[in-house]
Amino acid sequence: MKELCGFSKLSKLEKLNFVVDEYLNASEHVKQDFLSCAYENEKFQRIHEQFSENTISNFHLPYGVVPHLLMNGVDYCVPMVIEESSVVAACSRSAKFWKRRGGFHAEVISKIKTGQVHFYYSGPVKKLKKIFNENKAILLTHVREINCNMSKRGGGILDIALIDKTQDEPNYYQLSLNFNTCDAQGANYINTNLETLAFEFKKLFSDNELEIIFSIVSNYTPDSLVRCYVTCSLSELHDDQIEMPPELFATRFKKAVRISQVDITRAVTHNKGIMNGVDAVAIATGNDFRSIEACVHAFASKEGTYRGLTNISLENNKFYYELIIPLSVGTVGGLTNLHPLASNSLNMLKKPHAEDLMKIMACVGLAQNFAAIRSLVTSGIQKGHMKMHLINILNYFEASEKEKEQTFLFFKDKRVSFNEVRSFLGRDKQLQ
Amino acid sequence: MKELCGFSKLSKLEKLNFVVDEYLNASEHVKQDFLSCAYENEKFQRIHEQFSENTISNFHLPYGVVPHLLMNGVDYCVPMVIEESSVVAACSRSAKFWKRRGGFHAEVISKIKTGQVHFYYSGPVKKLKKIFNENKAILLTHVREINCNMSKRGGGILDIALIDKTQDEPNYYQLSLNFNTCDAQGANYINTNLETLAFEFKKLFSDNELEIIFSIVSNYTPDSLVRCYVTCSLSELHDDQIEMPPELFATRFKKAVRISQVDITRAVTHNKGIMNGVDAVAIATGNDFRSIEACVHAFASKEGTYRGLTNISLENNKFYYELIIPLSVGTVGGLTNLHPLASNSLNMLKKPHAEDLMKIMACVGLAQNFAAIRSLVTSGIQKGHMKMHLINILNYFEASEKEKEQTFLFFKDKRVSFNEVRSFLGRDKQLQ
Repeated sequence: MKELCGFSKLSKLEKLNFVVDEYLNASEHVKQDFLSCAYENEKFQRIHEQFSENTISNFHLPYGVVPHLLMNGVDYCVPMVIEESSVVAACSRSAKFWKRRGGFHAEVISKIKTGQVHFYYSGPVKKLKKIFNENKAILLTHVREINCNMSKRGGGILDIALIDKTQDEPNYYQLSLNFNTCDAQGANYINTNLETLAFEFKKLFSDNELEIIFSIVSNYTPDSLVRCYVTCSLSELHDDQIEMPPELFATRFKKAVRISQVDITRAVTHNKGIMNGVDAVAIATGNDFRSIEACVHAFASKEGTYRGLTNISLENNKFYYELIIPLSVGTVGGLTNLHPLASNSLNMLKKPHAEDLMKIMACVGLAQNFAAIRSLVTSGIQKGHMKMHLINILNYFEASEKEKEQTFLFFKDKRVSFNEVRSFLGRDKQLQ
Repeated sequence: MKELCGFSKLSKLEKLNFVVDEYLNASEHVKQDFLSCAYENEKFQRIHEQFSENTISNFHLPYGVVPHLLMNGVDYCVPMVIEESSVVAACSRSAKFWKRRGGFHAEVISKIKTGQVHFYYSGPVKKLKKIFNENKAILLTHVREINCNMSKRGGGILDIALIDKTQDEPNYYQLSLNFNTCDAQGANYINTNLETLAFEFKKLFSDNELEIIFSIVSNYTPDSLVRCYVTCSLSELHDDQIEMPPELFATRFKKAVRISQVDITRAVTHNKGIMNGVDAVAIATGNDFRSIEACVHAFASKEGTYRGLTNISLENNKFYYELIIPLSVGTVGGLTNLHPLASNSLNMLKKPHAEDLMKIMACVGLAQNFAAIRSLVTSGIQKGHMKMHLINILNYFEASEKEKEQTFLFFKDKRVSFNEVRSFLGRDKQLQ
């Protein structure tokens, strides 16, 4: 193995050549695979390559849409980027089902972002509090300039607090700040504020009295909270696909939700389904899905046990199904305006404010979860999944259109497995 | 707004036309944006479109690589698909740093997947246990055929247990199964087993005695566990970018890790950084990152409070830094062999077994986290981030090469903000 210094300094083509030559048997065919994934539009490609480092190609994910999702009386066409089969179809079915029953309802409960200056202080806590209180206002003047534009848009620092964490760890304290970042996700803005404040705060103490460990935005935003729900009378739950009396369906649905609240093996899968919807919209709109995932799942454990995130009520003959989750997203800044399709996604969603996007994402999460539970408590999950699975297997074997037709017919009422499809097609090709 | 029935039945081009006409002002330009994101290779495009539903385009994400990540003595070039700036660069710096200090070490602790049949039973528990125990072996014969191929590969059902959950919810029980799914992620295989077993189990009871609620794989796999670590003597921590004595650096690093273990605002962000690395490899290899995210974060809360996932020790003058996480991944089946670049990613990683991929992903997570903490406790996070941020802003304003050069020079030692760059460039263009 040839080792290379300064890989990052190579041109994109040189990088690709190196990777393919050293790790992919110098295959010209593979090189062509990577090259052929570039944008047709050169300007797109140029912009795209600077999002991240050491890029040698673009990875494609399917860009699908859920048409006619009705939220708060408005019709949305929701873009979803996801590689998993059945997710977009499930959300679409949910959207269609609920459109006829008043649609989705959503509201933002609060929209506060936070960040902390984490530090160790070995002196008396009384002195620390005194210095903090006396200098709080002055400290904030040092970040006035940084906040100038955010303030103009109605945002900025909401408050700053000194937090005593010494019960958890000797000498450990925080300056904890709350922010309104308007329509931006705001991580860079928050970090710049925090690092400046930390620098000024340190100056108020003698040399070894206070040690700033680091200053950083928090991806835990339990106060950036959105609530959405669907509701209808029990009798309205009738549907061709439900195949059981509405009351029975509702009771089974409620048990399924209850299970997600008391059992972690199910809670994780339940919430994963919600995130199938949320993440797909996050990616489509240029948002960072890792921060959203981390926050939502930590939130799911806030009571001390990890729980499913939806709530159900069947009181007064009403089916009421709700999702409350924290979502920190942006509709300006970051990739939202730079990624060629992300900006189109936002336009498709009627140029939403951050609050609107929070609501839309939560509704798609609930839509996805509703469809999943509906399948689970009626026909089972495999029936729908398996059709998509079969398509993928047929493509793997490069089946002809005629073969596809025959295979679909044969497996209509049978279990689909890779090997059974292989023997039906008479193919010897092994899974690599 | 025109409402359409049967959207899913339209051709891809008809779908695109409908979406652009109804939600994007019928812009020909936008239509062209979506069309231009297709693969150049028509076969790729055809395969790709059947992964998910209602697709109208492909969404591109940067495909980058970390060259020369040394793990267990073997040199890897790791593919990463991520839109966030600085992540691939950070992993590359970590890989380079640790390569000279023995590299990354990793081992799979266990690799067990699970799934449950969730049911309600109103009779005496003694009777339930008796029926289960008497029929356990017979039940398993009903899934023998489904398990035939998995058994040949050395996998299959490991055990089946009856779990009494009535303390959490009246009448609620599970059949809980453990599986070895070999190199497959295995969700479909597990679900097929569970639904078949549920069907047969139900037959052992009289009509209303037992109600199967649903049967499904669990995305919570705490026994699909991988451990990785880096270690060196404290004195070896010297590096150009650290800019402080090794002992001080190590102590500050340890405090940073400690903070992630006692404070949720930091724990979430700490783990989010790990997942930046893990998810990027998951996507590049055709794995489902939502299931990985849900499992890892639920695992982080297993002690009752949500905690950072890394452990540190500075004993005996050794820096030892470790990550233990559950990862359920596949290297065969699903998209791994179907997505044109995913299969190349797996080849780049030397055609790994699932265990190998678990180890690689964990190491990339630790590499990313090490780089983040190193930046945080030394220069701060903004210094590196800001350079990438500046590039994105310059692209947004379509700055010329000369303007880019001047802007870089000007902002070399200054804070970067969107508005400051705008005024420096003299642009009036507003963020949309």
